[in-house]
Amino acid sequence: IAKEVAKLLEMKAQLGDEGKSKFVLKTPKGTRDYSPKQMAIRERVFNAIITCFKRHGAEVIDTPVFELKETLTGKYGEDSKLIYDLKDQGGELLSLRYDLTVPFARYLAMNKITNIKRYHIAKVYRRDNPAMTRGRYREFYQCDFDIAGHFDPMIPDAECLKIAHEILSELQLGDFLIKVNDRRILDGMFAVCGVPDSKFRTICSSVDKLDKMPWEDVRSEMLGEKGLSPEAANRIGEYVQLHGGLELIEQLLQDPKLSQNQLAKEGLGDMKLLFEYLTLFGITGKISFDLSLARGLDYYTGVIFEAVLVQQENNHEEEPVSVGSVAGGGRYDGLVGMFDPKGRRVPCVGVSIGIERIFSIMEQKVEASAEKIRTTETQVLVASAQKKLLEERLKLISELWDAGIKAEMLYKKNPKLLNQLQYCEDTGIPLVAIVGEQELKDGVVKLRVVATREEVDVRRESLVEEIKTRTS
Amino acid sequence: IAKEVAKLLEMKAQLGDEGKSKFVLKTPKGTRDYSPKQMAIRERVFNAIITCFKRHGAEVIDTPVFELKETLTGKYGEDSKLIYDLKDQGGELLSLRYDLTVPFARYLAMNKITNIKRYHIAKVYRRDNPAMTRGRYREFYQCDFDIAGHFDPMIPDAECLKIAHEILSELQLGDFLIKVNDRRILDGMFAVCGVPDSKFRTICSSVDKLDKMPWEDVRSEMLGEKGLSPEAANRIGEYVQLHGGLELIEQLLQDPKLSQNQLAKEGLGDMKLLFEYLTLFGITGKISFDLSLARGLDYYTGVIFEAVLVQQENNHEEEPVSVGSVAGGGRYDGLVGMFDPKGRRVPCVGVSIGIERIFSIMEQKVEASAEKIRTTETQVLVASAQKKLLEERLKLISELWDAGIKAEMLYKKNPKLLNQLQYCEDTGIPLVAIVGEQELKDGVVKLRVVATREEVDVRRESLVEEIKTRTS
Repeated sequence: IAKEVAKLLEMKAQLGDEGKSKFVLKTPKGTRDYSPKQMAIRERVFNAIITCFKRHGAEVIDTPVFELKETLTGKYGEDSKLIYDLKDQGGELLSLRYDLTVPFARYLAMNKITNIKRYHIAKVYRRDNPAMTRGRYREFYQCDFDIAGHFDPMIPDAECLKIAHEILSELQLGDFLIKVNDRRILDGMFAVCGVPDSKFRTICSSVDKLDKMPWEDVRSEMLGEKGLSPEAANRIGEYVQLHGGLELIEQLLQDPKLSQNQLAKEGLGDMKLLFEYLTLFGITGKISFDLSLARGLDYYTGVIFEAVLVQQENNHEEEPVSVGSVAGGGRYDGLVGMFDPKGRRVPCVGVSIGIERIFSIMEQKVEASAEKIRTTETQVLVASAQKKLLEERLKLISELWDAGIKAEMLYKKNPKLLNQLQYCEDTGIPLVAIVGEQELKDGVVKLRVVATREEVDVRRESLVEEIKTRTS
Repeated sequence: IAKEVAKLLEMKAQLGDEGKSKFVLKTPKGTRDYSPKQMAIRERVFNAIITCFKRHGAEVIDTPVFELKETLTGKYGEDSKLIYDLKDQGGELLSLRYDLTVPFARYLAMNKITNIKRYHIAKVYRRDNPAMTRGRYREFYQCDFDIAGHFDPMIPDAECLKIAHEILSELQLGDFLIKVNDRRILDGMFAVCGVPDSKFRTICSSVDKLDKMPWEDVRSEMLGEKGLSPEAANRIGEYVQLHGGLELIEQLLQDPKLSQNQLAKEGLGDMKLLFEYLTLFGITGKISFDLSLARGLDYYTGVIFEAVLVQQENNHEEEPVSVGSVAGGGRYDGLVGMFDPKGRRVPCVGVSIGIERIFSIMEQKVEASAEKIRTTETQVLVASAQKKLLEERLKLISELWDAGIKAEMLYKKNPKLLNQLQYCEDTGIPLVAIVGEQELKDGVVKLRVVATREEVDVRRESLVEEIKTRTS
């Protein structure tokens, strides 16, 4: 054994050396850097989202990027295998957050908060198979808005859908549809179709695949792997192809089987109320009650929804472009209670905007358009026309900074005027403040408008005002 | 063996159960949540910093929270032991970023960027001993501004100091001092004091403790642990008590020993140039050339600096309040070359603002003042004076949202008017739009000013304009 160990250690050492010489200059798998241009687009998307969250009166919180490992345990069902753990370096066992919902529930229980409306925008981590061209990463942003508290039914739920609607409209990503369902309707449906209680979750996860697989394949999975009877599967098949609005809800409330199931009846009753509120908000045109929607996460207890971008009908490309989910959410009334020592429940409902996919689309739109994106906000370049004027440039730029003007200069002692003007062209700086010997004597600065090449002498004491006027 | 394994597994299972029952509701050691109120203060600090960075024409980038482990290897000297590693779950070995400087250098090398001025605000991770009351955390924000590229000496360096000066002035944290030194002056000093080359780094790390320990203790460490000769230590002792401005630089340029050392001469020459530029910026009053400043990180090659808050002299508290570093930075001309396959150098200089300590101070200031911080921006609460008006409230609030008004309502079917008004008092909402049966008939909404209790009827079609006027 000692010999074997020695041999292995030697092999390991060799591998170590080899690894070093093969050092690869890259970001970890499934992650990326954001360049200044990408950041400019990202900021636009964030601004639209934050503006909407604030319009709805949300506060903002932040939580650590990692949690105690046990905080995340038992909250995500089958997805738990995708959680990133930290190495045990002594002390607590930690994991990177998998979403913002479980940390939010932990925050509420820990601080005994029973009533809050908050948003949280932060990165989450999943050891999933990345598909970066389609906006699927291992490190990605979630933009979450949640309402916690005991309220009258469906009022906060309706607001979450209104928010998804507002944000997707504002971002102009093209046509979209928000599918809505309810965990109670799903569970009631499974019961009346003859699915044994013990199989609710696993059959639910089969139904969840209907947006990627045809019904026949999902049915095969139910019969094979999941061991469901053909009769039960066929009955499910009839329900999950249904989608519509208020009239479908009314129809199902009259359904001889479903209406006998208490859970389904509750769910349908609330769904009706939800659609009444959505009608008052004027957004039912893009909302579809869809019995095939079954979101994966374990913690949902009531309404669930998911927003998808809809392919334009006049789009006849050969390869079908995958157009996925851009927002989702639902009600999770039991999660906070899982953290509370006494199990006290705080009902919650929330919406999460999937920024990466939206960001990919926005980036493509900008690439396709002629729009030139500025990555700085600089108003004026402090330049000189002759040599030996570094000190004068430093003095002037300092005055401008102190007056709140966004100003740059080239970090050269004697830059050529042409290079200074070229820098403005490249970066979109609209004005140049040129100091020269004659101007210094006259107590003026030459102000040049880059776009028109117009030049005017401005008295030094009026320069700040003049720049502000011209760039406002 | 099988028996032993079974026994151990049983013990493990028991421990697992015990662990579960002992579940602690907390954030990981050295981390914290930010409440809405803390977020409001944090946003203020960030705004001041970002405004300054943008005023200086910086672009912004972002990088992943973890890097390949080997990216961080060999960059931090003794501090490497504080790096968080991720568990090996198959695939690449990863570590959480320790600062934003090494990821920045990796980004430049990877994208072959030789010229950029960027800022980056993000969390970094250190397995240090936390001291949270003094703002020392294991997860904390860094706000970094760096200038990369081949430029004329000391112009970007001076701008980094100007930025630190602007931000600390803007935030009104009290009096501050920015200590400046240069790695080349330190190394030259060690050489002329008779420190052997091999001991430069370790003696440097002793000098670094001078802000926390008296010279006598540092000297003992040099003689004991570090094995330095008493003569060398005494010579160092003479130098490290020196601090001043241009006159000290001139004096040292004449110093018979230092002036003979090439490195020290270069460093002092650049220091003189730096002070000339800082004089033009008008900020030398708060800058001190201090030979005892020796920042820990391995990668610095030139100018180094650190900003500390200065205790008010009239402050006679019994317990000495620890007032630490709030910003720091320096020149690192070799770091990008460590990542470039051909070792091509990109000179860099940067400043990093230590937000956590600043944030602690701001938080204390707010606590001490009577200022009431709002955590939302809601302009108007949509309320009702009678029952059965939920639908009308939903219709009105939807109109307001769609017009860009920040509006809230209580999520109750029939809330009491008193409760609705109380909610405005509690959260600082300035206006209430009240729908009632009479108002609906008259086509008006009653607009109430919370502070004055004044009420006016506003025609429904003028409501948006009226709210905008009153809250602008």
